[in-house]
Amino acid sequence: MDGAVMYAPGDVRVEERPDPEIQDATDAVIRVSAACVCGSDLWPYRGVEDLEWPAPMGHEYAGVVEEVGSEVETIRPGQFVVGSFWATDNTCELCRAGYQSACVNRVPMGMLGAQAELLRIPFADGTLVATPDLPPDELIPSLLSASDVLGTGWFGAVAAQVGPGKTVAVVGDGAVGLHAVLAAKQLGAERIIAMSRHDARQGLAREYGATDIVEERGENGVAKVKELTGGLGAHSVVEAVGTQESMMQAVHSTRPGGHVGFVGVAHDVAIPGMEMFWSLVHLHGGPAPVRRFLPELIDLIWKREIDPGKVFDLELPLHEAAEGYEAMDQRRAIKALLRP
Amino acid sequence: MDGAVMYAPGDVRVEERPDPEIQDATDAVIRVSAACVCGSDLWPYRGVEDLEWPAPMGHEYAGVVEEVGSEVETIRPGQFVVGSFWATDNTCELCRAGYQSACVNRVPMGMLGAQAELLRIPFADGTLVATPDLPPDELIPSLLSASDVLGTGWFGAVAAQVGPGKTVAVVGDGAVGLHAVLAAKQLGAERIIAMSRHDARQGLAREYGATDIVEERGENGVAKVKELTGGLGAHSVVEAVGTQESMMQAVHSTRPGGHVGFVGVAHDVAIPGMEMFWSLVHLHGGPAPVRRFLPELIDLIWKREIDPGKVFDLELPLHEAAEGYEAMDQRRAIKALLRP
Repeated sequence: MDGAVMYAPGDVRVEERPDPEIQDATDAVIRVSAACVCGSDLWPYRGVEDLEWPAPMGHEYAGVVEEVGSEVETIRPGQFVVGSFWATDNTCELCRAGYQSACVNRVPMGMLGAQAELLRIPFADGTLVATPDLPPDELIPSLLSASDVLGTGWFGAVAAQVGPGKTVAVVGDGAVGLHAVLAAKQLGAERIIAMSRHDARQGLAREYGATDIVEERGENGVAKVKELTGGLGAHSVVEAVGTQESMMQAVHSTRPGGHVGFVGVAHDVAIPGMEMFWSLVHLHGGPAPVRRFLPELIDLIWKREIDPGKVFDLELPLHEAAEGYEAMDQRRAIKALLRP
Repeated sequence: MDGAVMYAPGDVRVEERPDPEIQDATDAVIRVSAACVCGSDLWPYRGVEDLEWPAPMGHEYAGVVEEVGSEVETIRPGQFVVGSFWATDNTCELCRAGYQSACVNRVPMGMLGAQAELLRIPFADGTLVATPDLPPDELIPSLLSASDVLGTGWFGAVAAQVGPGKTVAVVGDGAVGLHAVLAAKQLGAERIIAMSRHDARQGLAREYGATDIVEERGENGVAKVKELTGGLGAHSVVEAVGTQESMMQAVHSTRPGGHVGFVGVAHDVAIPGMEMFWSLVHLHGGPAPVRRFLPELIDLIWKREIDPGKVFDLELPLHEAAEGYEAMDQRRAIKALLRP
């Protein structure tokens, strides 16, 4: 089968890879209908993060089950399924507490390479959620988004305790930030401040429910959020970038007693203890337990109540994956969908 | 009147200071029945934190109202009252949300000097809570503790989301840590791990409800907590020290999805973003909104359901305040009570 492999920063190739097979009795193998390039794939692409080269790429996927192992009970061949970027048993104590991304048996799907025609899924019963039926083609981008970016933005909003009557600010206008805006709207936020200086992204943020746009960054952005919130700061702030500036922008934009939900992979970030202390904010985040939210997200997509697939503003055949990386790296595209 | 003044690190004197008077119509003046030395007073005493010398000292107090300003409505002369280490209006949006320690009009009581015979209390109606009657003398240490250490330990436990069925670990065996143990017991924790290597403090921790004692510190302490919790870590961890080691000990002792409540004043602490990200813990803390808990704490003390005053293992007349500082600095005393 064909699959994307990164050979070095900036060097992504689609090449022949061995067909995945059932290895454990709890595995499934799916035929990937759509995969995509993640913002986090850009860290190694830009040379910020090291991988063991050559590295199969991709951890977001939706597709049709081809085969299941002998111990798989709920997932059946022919079903259309979506799973998280972690394969997880969904039965351990941490999974049952809603923290599937910390499952004691978790397997990072990135190691298996979802930007490919076929994909092995460990713990198929725990990892995958099937749609009610085979989806029409136009729903596939939205279903794919639930695999990571939508689930991650949603977790950011939940971690920031978004709810009715609250003012929410979102730092970051990538796919995850935009989906955090969508999640905030669904979760009943009264006011949603999207922080973006990019025209097309501002438009999508507004479509997803943003009531205000703040173009300023860093402490100027903080001042603007305070201005919009009677000097107090937002109740809930989602951090969806992962830099020192964005993290402190999030902490400082939150009122005392408020909540920061952070889902940007926090590279080279150090949070000063005294600032956390005096800010009196709550901080929670990390790799999203997407599996917790998948049934609800699939349901919302199936009923056409949300349209998260709009973040894919570039669609390419799998063999042009390299162009997907380049377009996202250069910010020509928000997010690139790959069709094997 | 007499009051304690710090002239320089290590130099505390009790001397004649001007009698406080009503300055604003919302003020009260109280006659202090008991004050005390706080762990946080040791930061300037040890030269770690600078003050504007000479500095009046003390921010914990309980006493009898002498006089109230013309706009004070609920507090009356003759009442026995306890207040927090912040004077707060208790009416602003942040106070109403339970974050009185971030009150938009807050005044730090430390600036007014509670280790004294008389004390001015700004926003008397918002700051003070009266006991049902004049208390018997033996209740005064416990009532005094509600002014800071008990309320702070309690907030640590609440911030760590302590509750029924949970395993709680407490990092720090000072008065605040011991009160966090007491709070965890009251809030229904199933198992309470006190981290202490000090014999007398271990005893008090057990008396307050600790089920396990861990003597190891740092990563060895973390390993021990993991061993006691099936490898996962505690659900709730209270950090009551304020150093890099204690903060990371708290974060690492908490299971994914669990909660760290931190109330140690976080000096020279920097929390690595990647560790927060991968830990998946919740982090909340800061200066405790003691006022939120005061009515409940006073009620528990009044009914003799808790005995937090036991942390005072040294009682001195006010004019011997210097000895109280020295005893705590040398860890000869957990906490020193001063009687004007």
